[in-house]
Amino acid sequence: MDIIGTSLKRVDAFDKVTGKAKYTDDLVSGHALIAKVLHSTIANGWVKEFDLSEAWKVKGVVDIVTCFDVPDIQFPTAGHPWSTDPKHQDIADRKLLNARVRCYADDIAAVIAEDEIAAEEAVRKIKVTYEEYTPILTVEDAMKEGATVIHEERPNNIVVKSQYEIGNFEEAIKEEGLIKVVGDYETPVVSHCHIESANSFAYMESDKIVVVSSTQIPHIVRRVCSQALGVGFGKIRIIKPYIGGGFGNKQDALTEPLNAFLTTRVGGRPVKLAYTREETFASTRTRHAMQFHIESYIRKDGSFAARTIKAYSNQGGYASHAHALVANAVNGFRMMYPVGAIKSEAYTVYTNLPTAGAMRAYGIPQIGFALEAHVDDIAKQTGLDPIRLRKQNMMKLGYVDPITTITCHSTGLDECIERGEKYLDYTKKRLAYANQSGPIRKGVGMAIFCYKTGVYPISLETSACRMILNQDGSLQMQIGATEIGQGADTVFAMMAAQTIGVTVDKVHVVSKQDTDVTPYDTGAYASRQTYVSGMAVKKTAESFRKKILDFAGFMLKKDPWDLDIKDNNIVHVNKSEKLLSVADVAIESCYSLTNSTHIAAEESHHCTDNTYSFGVCFTEVEVDIPMCQVKILDIINVHDSGRIINMQTARGQVHGGMSMGLGYGLYEYLKFDPKTGRMLNDNLLDYKLMTAIDTPELHADFVETDDPTGPYGNKSLGEPPTIPVAPAIRNAVLNATGVAINAAPLHPQRMFEAFTEAGLIK
Amino acid sequence: MDIIGTSLKRVDAFDKVTGKAKYTDDLVSGHALIAKVLHSTIANGWVKEFDLSEAWKVKGVVDIVTCFDVPDIQFPTAGHPWSTDPKHQDIADRKLLNARVRCYADDIAAVIAEDEIAAEEAVRKIKVTYEEYTPILTVEDAMKEGATVIHEERPNNIVVKSQYEIGNFEEAIKEEGLIKVVGDYETPVVSHCHIESANSFAYMESDKIVVVSSTQIPHIVRRVCSQALGVGFGKIRIIKPYIGGGFGNKQDALTEPLNAFLTTRVGGRPVKLAYTREETFASTRTRHAMQFHIESYIRKDGSFAARTIKAYSNQGGYASHAHALVANAVNGFRMMYPVGAIKSEAYTVYTNLPTAGAMRAYGIPQIGFALEAHVDDIAKQTGLDPIRLRKQNMMKLGYVDPITTITCHSTGLDECIERGEKYLDYTKKRLAYANQSGPIRKGVGMAIFCYKTGVYPISLETSACRMILNQDGSLQMQIGATEIGQGADTVFAMMAAQTIGVTVDKVHVVSKQDTDVTPYDTGAYASRQTYVSGMAVKKTAESFRKKILDFAGFMLKKDPWDLDIKDNNIVHVNKSEKLLSVADVAIESCYSLTNSTHIAAEESHHCTDNTYSFGVCFTEVEVDIPMCQVKILDIINVHDSGRIINMQTARGQVHGGMSMGLGYGLYEYLKFDPKTGRMLNDNLLDYKLMTAIDTPELHADFVETDDPTGPYGNKSLGEPPTIPVAPAIRNAVLNATGVAINAAPLHPQRMFEAFTEAGLIK
Repeated sequence: MDIIGTSLKRVDAFDKVTGKAKYTDDLVSGHALIAKVLHSTIANGWVKEFDLSEAWKVKGVVDIVTCFDVPDIQFPTAGHPWSTDPKHQDIADRKLLNARVRCYADDIAAVIAEDEIAAEEAVRKIKVTYEEYTPILTVEDAMKEGATVIHEERPNNIVVKSQYEIGNFEEAIKEEGLIKVVGDYETPVVSHCHIESANSFAYMESDKIVVVSSTQIPHIVRRVCSQALGVGFGKIRIIKPYIGGGFGNKQDALTEPLNAFLTTRVGGRPVKLAYTREETFASTRTRHAMQFHIESYIRKDGSFAARTIKAYSNQGGYASHAHALVANAVNGFRMMYPVGAIKSEAYTVYTNLPTAGAMRAYGIPQIGFALEAHVDDIAKQTGLDPIRLRKQNMMKLGYVDPITTITCHSTGLDECIERGEKYLDYTKKRLAYANQSGPIRKGVGMAIFCYKTGVYPISLETSACRMILNQDGSLQMQIGATEIGQGADTVFAMMAAQTIGVTVDKVHVVSKQDTDVTPYDTGAYASRQTYVSGMAVKKTAESFRKKILDFAGFMLKKDPWDLDIKDNNIVHVNKSEKLLSVADVAIESCYSLTNSTHIAAEESHHCTDNTYSFGVCFTEVEVDIPMCQVKILDIINVHDSGRIINMQTARGQVHGGMSMGLGYGLYEYLKFDPKTGRMLNDNLLDYKLMTAIDTPELHADFVETDDPTGPYGNKSLGEPPTIPVAPAIRNAVLNATGVAINAAPLHPQRMFEAFTEAGLIK
Repeated sequence: MDIIGTSLKRVDAFDKVTGKAKYTDDLVSGHALIAKVLHSTIANGWVKEFDLSEAWKVKGVVDIVTCFDVPDIQFPTAGHPWSTDPKHQDIADRKLLNARVRCYADDIAAVIAEDEIAAEEAVRKIKVTYEEYTPILTVEDAMKEGATVIHEERPNNIVVKSQYEIGNFEEAIKEEGLIKVVGDYETPVVSHCHIESANSFAYMESDKIVVVSSTQIPHIVRRVCSQALGVGFGKIRIIKPYIGGGFGNKQDALTEPLNAFLTTRVGGRPVKLAYTREETFASTRTRHAMQFHIESYIRKDGSFAARTIKAYSNQGGYASHAHALVANAVNGFRMMYPVGAIKSEAYTVYTNLPTAGAMRAYGIPQIGFALEAHVDDIAKQTGLDPIRLRKQNMMKLGYVDPITTITCHSTGLDECIERGEKYLDYTKKRLAYANQSGPIRKGVGMAIFCYKTGVYPISLETSACRMILNQDGSLQMQIGATEIGQGADTVFAMMAAQTIGVTVDKVHVVSKQDTDVTPYDTGAYASRQTYVSGMAVKKTAESFRKKILDFAGFMLKKDPWDLDIKDNNIVHVNKSEKLLSVADVAIESCYSLTNSTHIAAEESHHCTDNTYSFGVCFTEVEVDIPMCQVKILDIINVHDSGRIINMQTARGQVHGGMSMGLGYGLYEYLKFDPKTGRMLNDNLLDYKLMTAIDTPELHADFVETDDPTGPYGNKSLGEPPTIPVAPAIRNAVLNATGVAINAAPLHPQRMFEAFTEAGLIK
């Protein structure tokens, strides 16, 4: 293994740094019409009527489409593979434009105009008559007897309720001498804040609708558009250029279905539908706010005898990914500490908040905050050491989850904890900081996590890849898996080069997915790509390598079985003397007068395994009690993501995830007007995203295990780094002040209230 | 066979008729820089020096590149598959810009500017100092002792000389009683006059150069650009959108290599290089002018005892396709009447005319005019019937050409002649018109031809195709073979549908070739595509069909061997009851939780056969002797092109070819200033292309043979229709007036001279 594990410069680095990389908006025709959406100014109710007379008078208006003009088709938007079993299909609960308004800034009409100014002016001039109901913003209100029904298919506003029990909880808690620890925890609604706002453009080629979009999931978006418009898959083509981040928001059909419909209204002329930052905040997706009630029963030796959780997930107006997130959260509750009896009850509830969808780590940042806070609460209440407590109860090698059957094929979690502990000198400091006084106090905190790799066996994991040999011995690689800024193209190129036997510069990644010609893959989510799509790359590379060797065997009159490829050359197996170059084979295969063959390979892989990644965050903070400020003095994430494909890009992923975790722990939350449900901080001035100034020096370390199921020993890394940061901070504040703050983020107002209640501020 | 043979509407009809189809210039970024080429104002000499000072002062000029700045690499431009054998490689005799000027309007410098006006102004302001030699415009002058050497590699200006002899000519002519017929014939330089001028644009993606171009041969152009710039194939990407005709001119690298170079000069910014109509006339390619001296020795019974030909082809300044055309011509001389001893000597000669290249039927319109005129001359001199003479000596079923080994696998030529004869009542009219007097006279003429299908075994014939199943049971088809207006996409779609067992509407042809992802194929030329690429389509469709049936077998728990596809459904072999739809198979293959498979097939086919198409033209004309005008009263082409895939598009091809043949016979030729070599009629006003007004009612008929080597019984049809028209007209004028005009076209001036010499005009 020469290439895997090196710190190769990203294959797209040059184009991205120099501004040459083309994003969706760079590709729009100058002749495109501009569409703007009219969003509702109520959060709950009905559109009764539109007065379009003034809007139609605006010069340049080409068409106005309202919720009364769209196909009477309800469709789902979640970026899941489809299921041919109706029971497992995503909830189809929205139309292209909705007369039944279910959240503030719901999509109710759209204008297509010659330019942006005309489109915006016409949108402003549409007059709407509503029938308005009181907005329901909390899970409690939504579940109240007699609450307004948000979707008639769900008369009690509960999208899904699920439960599980491992062992016998009621029996288990009867054991003598158990210590009961109870906690309530909650996490906020936050925004993905990807650099590139939601945007797309669409046009028609004959009767085919083409949508160019900033999406993580082109093949899935194709299926969603097909469903939303009621046309065949083959009549939809999605093209995905480079995208400026997604973080799960773009694992959902956003502007694409409406945009696909709008071009059909203007005879297939190009129509651009680009959301502003404010629209992206208010009218795309958010991270689910969740509330958890946890009760744990601990033996004196620290072992967990029984635990129970009730979880409530605030879905907002539409189902999107729906219950999958809180289900993931309560599964994470079980998997991280899979000992004793465990009982769970989880609810996903419609409200009139903006729709929540997928976001980096998909329910695990929520449960991670609650669970790891709770473990420190247990440590505090029992006087046990937080690290010992975790090590004693956490998942071990060989664990097979009783519900999902996912097996722990490898774990470096013990060593991750040890490295983090050592780096921060955690145990010593924790004791030293336990009883401070004064306004400024220090504290250390830590948290661990486990994370699945992809979605198997809960859902389908499939991926495909194609490689095409060029006459100079280089190759193109097409893969349905998507580059979304995370470095996928780079690691796939490394995998291909490694397996074929060529140098990385010979691999030209076709970064743009085009559903017409790109092999099928469900896309970028669930930290699945290096694992699932990596298998398709490896399988295709092996097939491609074999075809090259077959032709080399023909040229050399040797059995291909005796041949190998090393450093772009054909060699005898176990030797390194060059017999031919791959370029020699390539050119002869194209131009042989007796045996020309276009060398290409295409393979799909049906993935039937899964494995766990692990990691920790250790942090040291300084709490300014009167100012209600937390300063991060030091922070490190240590990850077991199996073999690291590219150390440099892996480190980048960890830094990005930690930054997101810091925001989640300290600053970020969306505020809503309690009367109207309107989002109050739908912009990057009022929404407190981490900036370079806010960010401390970030440290990342890796414990490299060699996972037997990973194509190159690798496991998930994309989402995990964000998970443990917020609970580690919360636990550090607890260590510093003795105050347990059970809701994220730890923003000054929240700390002021907590410190006041605890008597630290008088 | 339900689909093959139907008159299906073209798959691109709607987009082309409504103007939605995108051509190269429709795709240029609005931010593209504009390049203009400075063409030489001498035809023979050297550029000694440039004065760029005034040009650089033009506002908006970004770069000026001269022939002293380009890579010192000579490259070939002909659209042939490459050969790994240097002896069979095309002649590399030009640079991106040339200091040694070899024809008027040679490319000597280029300006890149922010807009077209600045680029043109700067080009005008470049001052050039030349060393000028006398232009050599004719083969005779070029071959003269002491003529200026145009390329130092060819000191006698002969690009290639070739000869062959079948039987023993000198012995054969000793036979007693032979009648000797001698004739000299010549054909003009003409222009392709495709609607869309030569144009392209280029930009860079990272270190890859992308050229979007109006070309017939994207994969070959990629290789040529790679050679011209000295970079690897993998660093060049050619994209071919819809093109507005090519007729062989775009079977050559035209603007692409220079355009690829120019974008590298401006850091990869998009640069458009679009030739005007005038530049397309004067600075791309033309059809070779040829001169033939033929001597035939005929027995009294009409059988040909011996024939000899000397052929001279005027190559112009650069080799391009070089000797391949006149070689094709003298091969055609042999193949059409493959009896008796035959001897040939052929020369391709550099001159200072514009470079001649490929044009529809590649040397055969030239020999067709000479040979079929000569056969009527034989008939006239011997008193034999022209049809009997042809039938007696022409190629018969089973003929194996002694040089190329191409076998006559099928022939309907006899029946073609009979149908044409009957349609026009030719024999009766010919006798009736034999002895007219008066100023207005009628005449009938006919001519036959044979035409190979593709280039095997003279050169490589290889093609590849890929099909990708959509979840709705439709498919994309990618093929390296190109739609150039001839209807290729339509017939390929029909072939795929036929072989897979689906309806044609399920086949979505990816019309745009992109060398990064499109399977390898050499492109549109030699009337090869339905035959050669059709095999790749059929082979891929069979492989694709098998994969669908394999998955259907898995779903149905049946052996796939028992299953078939009919009308988009999976059925039991020999039954028609629907078991599943292809759409059912498609969606399950994508979303199966146990066995997901991305269904796609990709196959290449190495073609190792060839076959002959045949046909005739019969025409009746009215000659106005004093006005030197020919009016076409009636005209029909009857073709044996094997099985006709699509009757409607086939008819369209014949009409187009006949129109081109009419122009070749009556009006079209390029004129050059004998002093400077400058083209005098480089525009559509002065160059007399056939217009709708000039065109008589065109009749087309087909004798459908079922060729055993064609993928669907089909043979070449694209180029042939143009071949027999001009000689049929010439022979009709001979019948009408008794005057043999041995040079095309029969324009008024030429007829005036001939009629004057014959005493018809006094």
